[in-house]
Amino acid sequence: MNGGNGPLSYANNSSYQKAAVDCTKVMVNEAIVDEFDIKQLSSSTPYRIADLGCSIGPNTFIAVQNIIEAVERKYQSNGLESNIPEFQVFFNDHASNDFNTLFSSLPLDRRYFGVGVPGTFHARLFPKASLHFVYSSYALHWLSKLPKELLDTNSPTWNKGRIHYVGAPNNVFEAYSTQFRKDMHAFLDARAEEVAPYGLMALLFAVVPNGTIPSESFIYLLYERLGIALMDMANMVSLIPNTK
Amino acid sequence: MNGGNGPLSYANNSSYQKAAVDCTKVMVNEAIVDEFDIKQLSSSTPYRIADLGCSIGPNTFIAVQNIIEAVERKYQSNGLESNIPEFQVFFNDHASNDFNTLFSSLPLDRRYFGVGVPGTFHARLFPKASLHFVYSSYALHWLSKLPKELLDTNSPTWNKGRIHYVGAPNNVFEAYSTQFRKDMHAFLDARAEEVAPYGLMALLFAVVPNGTIPSESFIYLLYERLGIALMDMANMVSLIPNTK
Repeated sequence: MNGGNGPLSYANNSSYQKAAVDCTKVMVNEAIVDEFDIKQLSSSTPYRIADLGCSIGPNTFIAVQNIIEAVERKYQSNGLESNIPEFQVFFNDHASNDFNTLFSSLPLDRRYFGVGVPGTFHARLFPKASLHFVYSSYALHWLSKLPKELLDTNSPTWNKGRIHYVGAPNNVFEAYSTQFRKDMHAFLDARAEEVAPYGLMALLFAVVPNGTIPSESFIYLLYERLGIALMDMANMVSLIPNTK
Repeated sequence: MNGGNGPLSYANNSSYQKAAVDCTKVMVNEAIVDEFDIKQLSSSTPYRIADLGCSIGPNTFIAVQNIIEAVERKYQSNGLESNIPEFQVFFNDHASNDFNTLFSSLPLDRRYFGVGVPGTFHARLFPKASLHFVYSSYALHWLSKLPKELLDTNSPTWNKGRIHYVGAPNNVFEAYSTQFRKDMHAFLDARAEEVAPYGLMALLFAVVPNGTIPSESFIYLLYERLGIALMDMANMVSLIPNTK
């Protein structure tokens, strides 16, 4: 993912992800209306929100603002406006994320204490029972690593020239699937410790229903085209030395 | 302050500040032995440490480790080793600090959850009563801004060619002094809200005793020489166009 805020940066090329954030606004609001129990939050405790895999903005700021406004509305609608808690927001991504750009673009008029958390969300990142709302958008479908057997040219699981599993032998699919299960387990195990009692979690990520036919799936087609383009580029690079 | 980790970076040019961190180790330990009351920390609460004006390491990691080890020793010496809390460490500096370098150099074997906090410590940065140890080393003596009257060439407070107040008229000294008082008030007002009951604070910054004679003070002499060097450089730059 490209850092900074130039023309090729993620910050300026994430309108697709922004549309997804907008779609979840209503769901996030309904979850807070239906499930957030004001009585569970002691008056001296801040409401702590984490965006896991937040990238560098601006989508994370919009998502967080949606959550905060929903919580505020809940207090207001219960006649408890004066009890609205302070908010602390933890923006998480890999240590290699461009936190410098994230921090320099934090909204000036924010009503929360903003914090950056470097590290993988496939492990513990926060103290026990300290988070009230965990949010993750367009991050959880990325694997923590490529299953190494896919790179072994002598293995029946070698994923020759592909960046995903469509059109590959079944054991390629199984290798990806096993890695995804491990990653999800690690993610959920860590959150199980970190989320406070009665805390909420909203996870948004790309999926395909079981049994989806590849030719009918946007995601399958997208990665197939992308894989072909990457292979073309790789072949061009390897040809150049031969033409000299 | 230079970011990154190159030959001119702060990370590789802060051995003087490192010596100061080493000097405070004993004092920090004594403060925790004498003043930290284990009973005040609920078993479900992490011990939260903030380094305000942390820069980009490595000194901040050493300072934080000293605090954590002192807290752990306190539990051990009370036979409460199994009750040692989780630690969460908030590394704070201006949003323009190089947090990318800070995060990429976090110790791999750390026993705490590390977090970056962008923003000035002359205002609120944390939720109410959420911090158990506030630490600040070689940061608090920097003013939040230059008093603007020092730049007004028509003012009797114009600080002609100096970067500090030694050798200047008394109202230059007063302007600096007033700004420092304002900054310290703002700092302490914010911390008064953020530090938990029975929390501790260790502040290390450059001072001179009242009545110090400038010619006998290392700090005075240092800034005088630095001011002269900066003026020489500024004069060189302004001369160059005239020689073309």
